[in-house]
Amino acid sequence: MTLILALDFGGTKLAAAVTQLGSRQWLRYERHLSPTGANATTDLEIMRSLIHNLLQGETPAAIGVSFGGPVDFTTGTVRLSHHVPGWENLPLKHLLENEFGVPASVDNDANVAALGECRFGAGQEYDSLFYITISTGVGGGWILNGKPWRGNAGMAGEIGHIVVDPAGPRCLCGKRGCVERLASGPYMAQDAKEYLLKPVNNLQGKQLRSLVNDDLNLITGKIISDAAAQGDELAINILQGGSWALGVGIGNVANLINPQRFILGGSVTKAGEIWWNTVQKTARETALPEIDFEILPAALGDDAPLWGAVALAELEVRS
Amino acid sequence: MTLILALDFGGTKLAAAVTQLGSRQWLRYERHLSPTGANATTDLEIMRSLIHNLLQGETPAAIGVSFGGPVDFTTGTVRLSHHVPGWENLPLKHLLENEFGVPASVDNDANVAALGECRFGAGQEYDSLFYITISTGVGGGWILNGKPWRGNAGMAGEIGHIVVDPAGPRCLCGKRGCVERLASGPYMAQDAKEYLLKPVNNLQGKQLRSLVNDDLNLITGKIISDAAAQGDELAINILQGGSWALGVGIGNVANLINPQRFILGGSVTKAGEIWWNTVQKTARETALPEIDFEILPAALGDDAPLWGAVALAELEVRS
Repeated sequence: MTLILALDFGGTKLAAAVTQLGSRQWLRYERHLSPTGANATTDLEIMRSLIHNLLQGETPAAIGVSFGGPVDFTTGTVRLSHHVPGWENLPLKHLLENEFGVPASVDNDANVAALGECRFGAGQEYDSLFYITISTGVGGGWILNGKPWRGNAGMAGEIGHIVVDPAGPRCLCGKRGCVERLASGPYMAQDAKEYLLKPVNNLQGKQLRSLVNDDLNLITGKIISDAAAQGDELAINILQGGSWALGVGIGNVANLINPQRFILGGSVTKAGEIWWNTVQKTARETALPEIDFEILPAALGDDAPLWGAVALAELEVRS
Repeated sequence: MTLILALDFGGTKLAAAVTQLGSRQWLRYERHLSPTGANATTDLEIMRSLIHNLLQGETPAAIGVSFGGPVDFTTGTVRLSHHVPGWENLPLKHLLENEFGVPASVDNDANVAALGECRFGAGQEYDSLFYITISTGVGGGWILNGKPWRGNAGMAGEIGHIVVDPAGPRCLCGKRGCVERLASGPYMAQDAKEYLLKPVNNLQGKQLRSLVNDDLNLITGKIISDAAAQGDELAINILQGGSWALGVGIGNVANLINPQRFILGGSVTKAGEIWWNTVQKTARETALPEIDFEILPAALGDDAPLWGAVALAELEVRS
């Protein structure tokens, strides 16, 4: 039996699974939340114990890894994690290959998820697609001519930091009106909170306030979606602002690259109909009329990075 | 002697040239302005007479064609010309192959110029680049992995119609604040004229007015550059607005695709230092700090489409 080991180092959780080469089902699957105060060392320790449980003494033929942050794919070195300290320049591929004696491939989560959706999910039979994850951050991964496109320095896909509103609010990256600044869960929550803290405001956010028992610090992207579904005008307003920004981004990408499909994953894509309708409508209005495309939810859900890691590892075994 | 015939159907001019396979020099070269009231039939007649002069009874091994408008590359059918009527759905490849009995390849000018710069110009030894032409319109052509990337429906590269300022002026395409709406020569001229026609305005456009002897209808993109070089504040303002929009577009593209080089051609790129500095600075500020790229002027100048047509034809001969 040829085993493939798939690892997912997310910002807040760690997951690992094994499957058989060519199979579309997990043999065994383990996940664990990153503890508060986690660093690269504790993340690696937890992952080691997940792997130990999964492998049960067997050796995989190859390891595929999805990492939640920028990675130099060629060397398999993590550049950094935006969420967990200690990952700077950590040679993850090298480390795993030494420890397990088999080939390992490491790439960032958006690229890996794009590959996963292309092989096993909503991108099957498509040879050009852009996968976008919208959750804590906003990032993207390319499949062009059926293969990952990583760009010259492996930095392609950063749709989160294209500017769609130069008069918009300031992003952590320093620019104004980036897609991520408007569309990510935490930024939508921050905007709602700041709005409600203003001495005078037109929209009261009644349902929103009620959902957090008036503790504005508890507002999250998820709660904004819930409040919007209940008809809260402020929540609808913010959700539409975020989905508008993403829609402009997608329409711009369609004009630039003209891929067949856009596949959207990440927690914010669970925000419901208002969000999806605004994304679809805005993207369609932004793209030239001659440019066709479809926008679909990720079929693999939260497992897209793990299945993409399988696809990455399979490339090693088959090459 | 293996001859390659290169044709360039521009919006306002027709050009044709012959070269030897593998050579970097024209054997013979002809160009002709499109007459006022031109249509597809008159353009084709003029081009036939240019070809007749060039070939002098010889037969080329292949024909490469640059067309100034959207083309279906696979079938070699022109979709339309934005400048000359009668080109709708004209099967240009088919027509040339029938007439000359040799393979012909037809693509839009930006894709062809990108290929020309990649093979013979500022993109040599680079395998990912984006060529942008900024003149009457703004368009782009991709080289990824050393080959043209045309997108699913051959519509990739439309940087002219990505939105960079949703609060900006209305573009012919219906959207607000497209790169083309802000950065193309005719739109810059239009904005200058409209500004000067306002009853009250802060900037007087003294040098600009003087260059056109107060006949505002004579303002062109070129004249705005000239006035800006003479220190005209209004002209500088408009030129900076255009180059800012292009810079945001380039920075956004760098974030999305991370190509090695951007190569800029077209009349507006002759606008001088103010324009180039603003493009470079804005693109650098818009791209994430980790993303490296260079922005360079096209090396082949106005001949980029013709040399690209040679490269297209050579692919036919060598395949």
